[in-house]
Amino acid sequence: MPASQHTNPKTDIQIAQEAIKRPIMELAKEKLGIAPENLDPYGHYKAKVSMDYVKSLKDKPNGKLILVSAISPTPAGEGKTTTTVGLTDALNHIGKKAMLCLREPSLGPSFGMKGGAAGGGYAQVVPMEDINLHFTGDFHAIGAAHNLLSALIDNHIYWGNALGIDGRRVAWRRAIDMNDRSLRQMVSSLGGVANGFPREDGFDITVASEVMAIFCLAKDLEDLKTRLGNIIVAYTRDRKPVRAADLKAHGPMAVLLKDALAPNLVQTLEGTPAFIHGGPFANIAHGCNSVLATTTALKLADYVVTEAGFGADLGGEKFIDIKCRKTGLKPDAVVLVATIRALKMHGGVKKEDLKTENLKALEVGMSNLQRHVENVQKFGLVPVVSINRFSADTDAEIALVKSACAKLGVEAVMADHWAEGGKGAADVARAVVKAVDSGKSNMKLLYPDDMPLVEKIRTIAKEIYRARDIAIAKPVQDQLASFEAMGFGKVPVCIAKTQYSFSTNPDSKAAPNDHVVTVREVRLSAGAEFVVAVCGDIMTMPGLPKVPAANSIDIGPDGKIVGLF
Amino acid sequence: MPASQHTNPKTDIQIAQEAIKRPIMELAKEKLGIAPENLDPYGHYKAKVSMDYVKSLKDKPNGKLILVSAISPTPAGEGKTTTTVGLTDALNHIGKKAMLCLREPSLGPSFGMKGGAAGGGYAQVVPMEDINLHFTGDFHAIGAAHNLLSALIDNHIYWGNALGIDGRRVAWRRAIDMNDRSLRQMVSSLGGVANGFPREDGFDITVASEVMAIFCLAKDLEDLKTRLGNIIVAYTRDRKPVRAADLKAHGPMAVLLKDALAPNLVQTLEGTPAFIHGGPFANIAHGCNSVLATTTALKLADYVVTEAGFGADLGGEKFIDIKCRKTGLKPDAVVLVATIRALKMHGGVKKEDLKTENLKALEVGMSNLQRHVENVQKFGLVPVVSINRFSADTDAEIALVKSACAKLGVEAVMADHWAEGGKGAADVARAVVKAVDSGKSNMKLLYPDDMPLVEKIRTIAKEIYRARDIAIAKPVQDQLASFEAMGFGKVPVCIAKTQYSFSTNPDSKAAPNDHVVTVREVRLSAGAEFVVAVCGDIMTMPGLPKVPAANSIDIGPDGKIVGLF
Repeated sequence: MPASQHTNPKTDIQIAQEAIKRPIMELAKEKLGIAPENLDPYGHYKAKVSMDYVKSLKDKPNGKLILVSAISPTPAGEGKTTTTVGLTDALNHIGKKAMLCLREPSLGPSFGMKGGAAGGGYAQVVPMEDINLHFTGDFHAIGAAHNLLSALIDNHIYWGNALGIDGRRVAWRRAIDMNDRSLRQMVSSLGGVANGFPREDGFDITVASEVMAIFCLAKDLEDLKTRLGNIIVAYTRDRKPVRAADLKAHGPMAVLLKDALAPNLVQTLEGTPAFIHGGPFANIAHGCNSVLATTTALKLADYVVTEAGFGADLGGEKFIDIKCRKTGLKPDAVVLVATIRALKMHGGVKKEDLKTENLKALEVGMSNLQRHVENVQKFGLVPVVSINRFSADTDAEIALVKSACAKLGVEAVMADHWAEGGKGAADVARAVVKAVDSGKSNMKLLYPDDMPLVEKIRTIAKEIYRARDIAIAKPVQDQLASFEAMGFGKVPVCIAKTQYSFSTNPDSKAAPNDHVVTVREVRLSAGAEFVVAVCGDIMTMPGLPKVPAANSIDIGPDGKIVGLF
Repeated sequence: MPASQHTNPKTDIQIAQEAIKRPIMELAKEKLGIAPENLDPYGHYKAKVSMDYVKSLKDKPNGKLILVSAISPTPAGEGKTTTTVGLTDALNHIGKKAMLCLREPSLGPSFGMKGGAAGGGYAQVVPMEDINLHFTGDFHAIGAAHNLLSALIDNHIYWGNALGIDGRRVAWRRAIDMNDRSLRQMVSSLGGVANGFPREDGFDITVASEVMAIFCLAKDLEDLKTRLGNIIVAYTRDRKPVRAADLKAHGPMAVLLKDALAPNLVQTLEGTPAFIHGGPFANIAHGCNSVLATTTALKLADYVVTEAGFGADLGGEKFIDIKCRKTGLKPDAVVLVATIRALKMHGGVKKEDLKTENLKALEVGMSNLQRHVENVQKFGLVPVVSINRFSADTDAEIALVKSACAKLGVEAVMADHWAEGGKGAADVARAVVKAVDSGKSNMKLLYPDDMPLVEKIRTIAKEIYRARDIAIAKPVQDQLASFEAMGFGKVPVCIAKTQYSFSTNPDSKAAPNDHVVTVREVRLSAGAEFVVAVCGDIMTMPGLPKVPAANSIDIGPDGKIVGLF
């Protein structure tokens, strides 16, 4: 029996720090055929692929796209990113030419809770410290572009407000990549005439910025600029929208994002090329890495593995209905990640009892996985189930999962890339190749563009969450009608709700039915081109815990970091 | 007669965009003997010199240090940075091995007023667009470190406030690299229990952060961390200081600054190596590039040219009494930059009349230059006067300046690097080499460490600004006494006052006498290790003008930036 997540004595950062990394220029040349002049290095192990090179790939054929998604998350952890990394290493291990695309992690949370976002164990992307800190500066650039727009709004009001912005109806907050609850709500422009007109304001964490969502959906620099110009920043007293373009903000914002827009190339511990680029929130945004990274990777590799945020009901649905809808991307297979531990939690087992075999609870919990499988099939896609192995998993439990999946016509495969790297996920890789080669995936969108917005929300709630219906108050319906009147009736909807349940109650595990999804509020992301339906408490600025991770993060005189992850 | 600042038809950005740049790894190897493995590239034309390599230079002999300073600035412009660049190119032009050290420009102001901070004409540092935008991300890192500390303060209060921080006595604001007047003064933590305890707060521009000053004064990573830990962030109700180290913030802050701390290498248009690193405000901080850049450059070149902010009375004095005091650096010559236009403005000529010969006004204005010359000599240093040529300068005017300088025993040389690059400043370079070779510079600090703080302020006011005295109210004196009681009596003082005059009245041109310098307020920068004496209106968060530069900044689909500078 291989080592497992319980027996491996090394921490993620130890493994990452001990890794022998290949110079990224060499790796890019050898594995992807990209010449050094088409890369902008950031140190020796990170590089951006130049936008000119990206454009030059336009007419090359596309590789196959594999979407990694998961069951509804639990505190037991599922390992979706780890699987994305391990599976791609495994595809290379079995002789395929594969690369992966991930989201960039946010810097702020690194100082709150321990735990990075670059995989784990022997399925990691490196240099992990850089990736989890400033990386290539993309998020700082996104924050700067966001805050330039904020400054231009208040500056416009200050100097006479020719556009007639209603200070009570400014829809654009400020952004910072830090967990800082004290910035959630504030009154700004205090201190008298020289500082402007006082108004209510606040900061969101940078990943929650609409600039981030736009950055990740933009097809190229021009599309980026157009979308930035379309952002609705405020309304006038008579409720006419004011756009970023009205403030001439989109040009300088695009200038600030010019370098960031090029995909970031790094490598896995096994030397597999990886794009890590963009990282929008998965609740008020769509939660996938940049379109540019995914479309570029498809030109460079035969198999491209990418992931979506949260479970398949949220991130998976948004991947298809938001990211694929506008770009023509179509997955050729979907991997659903689960663990036996997490399925048992869905079956009602407490965290402290997870090491004990419990087939009954597992059977109950399987309903969660089964529903995600059905949902994936509803999109016309072929799912493969990948179970991250833990040492407490029993043979009977494994057999139960496999046979339940088989009944749905789906292959469930055990994976141990965490302990073994790519070869630990070789069976998953083979199952995925089989699913892709079957050619049976034929992606269908869940709803057409011209369905009314409220019906789009209802369709997702009923078809994917299996709700009885949605509840939506008259003022919220009116708001949707006003978005339609403004010409935004054809955009997709992005549901912001708890990721822990199919329902809006995070404690409702497994596969709840007959619930009602209440739409509390709707917001228009006119630049990103979607309408957000808020169906729960959504926090766009996290706080730090009582004992933040920062307390144990330190650096020696030699520059070695300790305590980070 | 050579081309001049009036006849050259190209803008700075055009010249910079047309420049043929050498790959920075090649240039570093050839001109400085630095191997690629000792550099971290950021694209092909920027690199950071690794800290291990910096340390390895410890025992090498130092080159000669040349400080570029200037007369009291006027709206006519003096061209200090341009001279720093041009002189260094000129030193190489006459066969010396020279490099330069500059401050990094702040990003925020790029969107306010037009004009970059990487030199001008044919005396520029490139890639100028990068340098003026995100560059290598140093300022973003400094902002993140600053704001992590801010978040940890409020988080500490939120979770029980074990240290007893008085929310009314928080001395640490927030930072952002943007011109945003609406963030100057605010009330944060609104919105109820979950968001903390409401209090007054505000943002400064990142260059005004004490983290920036510390970053620029730190000798190495360990010194940086110690100084960060010493920052006083707040006081308790009984006025005991609370330090960043009490919040365990200095470790993670240093982690965020680890990469930024390495000096940034770029090149001039003529391929001269240049460090551009750090950029503290010249009013509430000391206004020089990082100590690490300067000390490293001295190991790599025979002549190192660097500049200080504002005129010689402010930036020059701080360079010596703050930067040199703690590091042992000593300039071997000082270049004082002036223009005949600016001297005429000091003599009372209006901007629109500057093109007319006016020997009388010039003679009056010369008093400003003369006093700066005397001040430099007071520090035991040999000055050279470098006059940036404009096409309206007449022979009689030039003769007047030269003969007035000769009377002070100082060589005044005409410079035309703006139009001609290094060869345009060859005479300045020869004069500088002569001054350095004379060996007559023998730097003396203006005051000893153990002079009382109030006397240090008085000494600068009387000796350098030629004030009759200082005026300092009892509460401000008490504050200074309390700093001394806390153990900060031995630190230097950093005067924050208008740069436009020797007095505190910006309209008092030339060489005012007999004025009184009122010390309004004093602040302790315990990490940076100086006391700031505020003697005027000091703005630590600029605003944007009515028609901000942002309005005309744009980018084409090919990624070409227009309207920036």
